[in-house]
Amino acid sequence: MEKKSAQGITIRKEENISDWYEQVCLKSELVEFSQVKGTMVIRPRGYAIWQAIQDYFNEKINKPLEVKNAYFPIFIPESFFKKEAEHAEGFSPEVAWIDKELTKDGERLALRPTSETIMYDSYSRWIRSYRDLPLKINQWCNIIRWETNATKLFLRSREFLWQEGHCVYETEKECEEDTLKVIRYYQKLTEELLAMPVLIGKKSEKEKFAGAKHTYTIEAFMPDGKALQCGTSHNLGQGFAKAFGISFLGRDEKKTLPWQNSWGISTRLIGGTVMLHSDDKGLVLPPEVAQEKIVIIPLLFKDSKETVLKKAKEIYKTLSKFNPILDASEEYSPGWKYSNWELKGIPLRIEIGPRDLEKKQVIIVKRNNGEKIVIKIDKLKQEIPRILEQIQNEMFEKAKSLLDSKIKLVKSWKEFEKAIKERNIAKVNWCENTECEISIKEKIGASTRCIPLEKEKVEGTCPHCGKPAKTIMYFSKSY
Amino acid sequence: MEKKSAQGITIRKEENISDWYEQVCLKSELVEFSQVKGTMVIRPRGYAIWQAIQDYFNEKINKPLEVKNAYFPIFIPESFFKKEAEHAEGFSPEVAWIDKELTKDGERLALRPTSETIMYDSYSRWIRSYRDLPLKINQWCNIIRWETNATKLFLRSREFLWQEGHCVYETEKECEEDTLKVIRYYQKLTEELLAMPVLIGKKSEKEKFAGAKHTYTIEAFMPDGKALQCGTSHNLGQGFAKAFGISFLGRDEKKTLPWQNSWGISTRLIGGTVMLHSDDKGLVLPPEVAQEKIVIIPLLFKDSKETVLKKAKEIYKTLSKFNPILDASEEYSPGWKYSNWELKGIPLRIEIGPRDLEKKQVIIVKRNNGEKIVIKIDKLKQEIPRILEQIQNEMFEKAKSLLDSKIKLVKSWKEFEKAIKERNIAKVNWCENTECEISIKEKIGASTRCIPLEKEKVEGTCPHCGKPAKTIMYFSKSY
Repeated sequence: MEKKSAQGITIRKEENISDWYEQVCLKSELVEFSQVKGTMVIRPRGYAIWQAIQDYFNEKINKPLEVKNAYFPIFIPESFFKKEAEHAEGFSPEVAWIDKELTKDGERLALRPTSETIMYDSYSRWIRSYRDLPLKINQWCNIIRWETNATKLFLRSREFLWQEGHCVYETEKECEEDTLKVIRYYQKLTEELLAMPVLIGKKSEKEKFAGAKHTYTIEAFMPDGKALQCGTSHNLGQGFAKAFGISFLGRDEKKTLPWQNSWGISTRLIGGTVMLHSDDKGLVLPPEVAQEKIVIIPLLFKDSKETVLKKAKEIYKTLSKFNPILDASEEYSPGWKYSNWELKGIPLRIEIGPRDLEKKQVIIVKRNNGEKIVIKIDKLKQEIPRILEQIQNEMFEKAKSLLDSKIKLVKSWKEFEKAIKERNIAKVNWCENTECEISIKEKIGASTRCIPLEKEKVEGTCPHCGKPAKTIMYFSKSY
Repeated sequence: MEKKSAQGITIRKEENISDWYEQVCLKSELVEFSQVKGTMVIRPRGYAIWQAIQDYFNEKINKPLEVKNAYFPIFIPESFFKKEAEHAEGFSPEVAWIDKELTKDGERLALRPTSETIMYDSYSRWIRSYRDLPLKINQWCNIIRWETNATKLFLRSREFLWQEGHCVYETEKECEEDTLKVIRYYQKLTEELLAMPVLIGKKSEKEKFAGAKHTYTIEAFMPDGKALQCGTSHNLGQGFAKAFGISFLGRDEKKTLPWQNSWGISTRLIGGTVMLHSDDKGLVLPPEVAQEKIVIIPLLFKDSKETVLKKAKEIYKTLSKFNPILDASEEYSPGWKYSNWELKGIPLRIEIGPRDLEKKQVIIVKRNNGEKIVIKIDKLKQEIPRILEQIQNEMFEKAKSLLDSKIKLVKSWKEFEKAIKERNIAKVNWCENTECEISIKEKIGASTRCIPLEKEKVEGTCPHCGKPAKTIMYFSKSY
């Protein structure tokens, strides 16, 4: 019996989450390191998750929000960056440029680290009157940021895939409403599709997007107590409009500055999903994003092989809409196959042997918790959707309990330090000063994650600097 | 009444097809030139066509051909190119490189002009045994080719979007079968979706893909008599496998070289569709790829405004699955609106006024030929799909007649010269010599397009060099 490369995960999640995570990503064949430092190859199993995210999100934005997809060039002239000072400064360390010899006018061309500048240059030509507003455009594309920190598959790489929405509005009110709508769509996406609960809130002044008025964020929490920023929606105010000369003739016939927002999610979401749910056997995927939701494994013995295989094929056909795998190879033992498909993260396994056949039943095993269920074959078609839904819910509930248990309301600096040291999220009555924020980061490695969207009562003083508290803020370590 | 920018096309198609084409692309808001020389912004109306192409083609390859989508890095190390000599040479003039400072190991990084090399590097690690074959992967991505010729919207630009499929097979037979299947899928796509008939065939030795064994192509013909290569499918033989160290343990337990193909279509297809079908009023789009298939224009007069508008809204709802536009603005005259939506290429216009309302009817105008049809309102839902299908067929038939009329079987050099001069496609009994091919190109500007897939009888001698004819070959000018 050939061994192949399907050997399992050799590092425990609790032991070394970072190395464990890398093994899960690689061995489940979601992704691999490319030969070019800092980049990755998203393999079919990984890309299928991205496609599921794309389909879900296009559905949300295209009709209900009336956003249209488009495509802008990857090349951005250096001068465009310089038009919005904060923005230019925010991105300058990680911009990659193409060979200078290529631009004869002496201007360097960047590979997009984000597309505000090149899109708003076009917008300045497209928008003339209030009748042209709102303008709502989104693009799915590759993004280049020349990170110098170590590459982490899906989480930090020099090229990644994302969507970026860029909208322009007549009024501040519409702009803010949509900015909030989108961050709530993102929350729905991570929670419904990826079974990944998040905190939703506003970034601090220091952590907001370069050039924005304010930034909303969704933050997932990984089992190692680090936050993972999963999506952001920026109210850009009128700063970019001013810098890029976007204006419109208002209803009052006066030249007016519009309001803008931008918002994005990336292939980083795949990494969060993998790290949150997977275990020491390998990948655990929420059924909603698993392309192949079921693996059928017939137990083949000499005498009964034909009848068992025949029934397995029937089941395969019956369940075709779940895109099942039928693993009927005879080179590997059933045990080897179980491990292999657990490693790959197939949500449901169906085992069928001669004894099951006699009883007109199969055994179903849930990937998320190993639970076994015996089901009559003629009930499969109606029971499978229910069980997949159950898995999805169980995965979300488990993750939600983890998140809830990690949030620690801290009153004193001692409690604050302890909460972070023990890899929790500190919920703090905070002073909102940037110097205080920087100092906290230096001392205990925790950064501000977000101010909760739902208003909460603020009381007392900042546990770090002692000044009066102005807001609730979540602090934690982060990716 | 405001004039806006919706003024019509000012150049006639027959007069100057190149300038006319650019006006149609720009004024119908499919695309615009970006501020970065050689690149374009694909606007929502243009991108919607690309999405329709993506949906159609994914449907064809994912299930029936079992191809899976993935994503490989845009960066390719210089050394990868050098592994396959012909391939490296073929692409070297148009490769763009990123700033040298970024690559500390002294190796330059190219922006992908095509992805054979970086994909096959991964394949060499993924493929071990015949059980890993066939491996069938496709990616949708951006491509960079630093063209120095003038930019032509959709047809020639330094960045464009495409799909590239890259498959690996155990046997030559499977490989060749799929290579042909794909070129036939491409033909179906251009003909069924884009109403654009093509010639299908094999490229000459000189025109085949750099590094391929042979290349199949589909070639559309534009009204100016120039061919537009619309899609290619390459049988790569075993050359890349050898160069990139891809091998597998065969059924006979021996190390074996696999067979490979690659195939692609790009946003160039949008340009072909626009140039082929559009007219002096602007864009004409096949209903199958038009996102908004209908525009409803109510004729609003003081007394009857409310009832007409109410009915127009009812019709809008009834026809919602055709993604209609209801243009009920009162700033513009109906005539202005007709021109505007003709310019934008909406396949069907529905006019409804008070007199129509009395007769419980509407007037329908077909964009492709201006034909007017009176239809009872209660028949709309059942008649519209039929009329849209009719438009699609009429557009294909018209284009097919054009193509057929352009093919001239030439026997002598004089006939050959004349056919090309009069902007036709010369069908030639040809010697198949590369020197002859080069000489013909130099003399009359015609290049080899393809050898028809369906075998035809070859007779006589080459009308250019007089050597015995070996094959039928189509020659023409080209984009």
